[in-house]
Amino acid sequence: MPPENDNTAAEAQIRALIVDRLKAVRARDLNGATAHVAIGIVSFDVVNPLQYLGSEACRRRTQEWFASFQGEIGCDIRDLNITVGHEVAFSHSLYRVTGNKVGGEKVHMYWRATAGYKKLDGKWVIVHEHNSVPFDARNGRASVDLKP
Amino acid sequence: MPPENDNTAAEAQIRALIVDRLKAVRARDLNGATAHVAIGIVSFDVVNPLQYLGSEACRRRTQEWFASFQGEIGCDIRDLNITVGHEVAFSHSLYRVTGNKVGGEKVHMYWRATAGYKKLDGKWVIVHEHNSVPFDARNGRASVDLKP
Repeated sequence: MPPENDNTAAEAQIRALIVDRLKAVRARDLNGATAHVAIGIVSFDVVNPLQYLGSEACRRRTQEWFASFQGEIGCDIRDLNITVGHEVAFSHSLYRVTGNKVGGEKVHMYWRATAGYKKLDGKWVIVHEHNSVPFDARNGRASVDLKP
Repeated sequence: MPPENDNTAAEAQIRALIVDRLKAVRARDLNGATAHVAIGIVSFDVVNPLQYLGSEACRRRTQEWFASFQGEIGCDIRDLNITVGHEVAFSHSLYRVTGNKVGGEKVHMYWRATAGYKKLDGKWVIVHEHNSVPFDARNGRASVDLKP
């Protein structure tokens, strides 16, 4: 088992990665937002399709998503929890995203975010990501208006 | 770093846990289906609410879910990927669930499943779970009919 302070350092590295990425999203910086994504990532996104396979698909999706907003993208997280091991880690949190869509629609939604990380060549990368909202079983509609 | 065969053993243990749980769901066995859930689990489910906190909430949710089906619950997984470290692991896969709801509605859907595990007292437990379907951004409806 690695010593305690190894895990503390790893947790700080992953926290920094998450904060970096948030800043990049707010700045609509595509390279920054996708910098830590592993080539072989399997990504489950909030909207269709069922999955994106590979960093190129994720990059295109992020680019499309940025382009769907006019002006600033507000993005913060809460209830962040990081579980770290020696070379494997995962995190979960709630994201709040705010802004105005190109069509004029206002966005103010929370989604659930989970990520899986691996340490490759001394650097943490995101090998899996899962973002979603639940749906209302009574009417089949995605719950984009839930608050924690 | 732990030797390679430790990770192989850990992966086999987690695979067994997942298979056990699938069998328990098919048998509508509540104790089996929730046996590996950690007391402090944070669970993001396919339907509302945003999250379930703690094993008791997960158990009640599983019980409700079982009760919403009449007869057999069909449940299998595909594209299972497990990433293991010494004491931390995560997995992702696609679940296919089939059956008949109490109201008569037929269910045949795929969802995305991610789980986070920790080894506590020598035993792997599920500390986080995230299950979802994406939604169609054009009409706000949950995509319960996507196929991989």
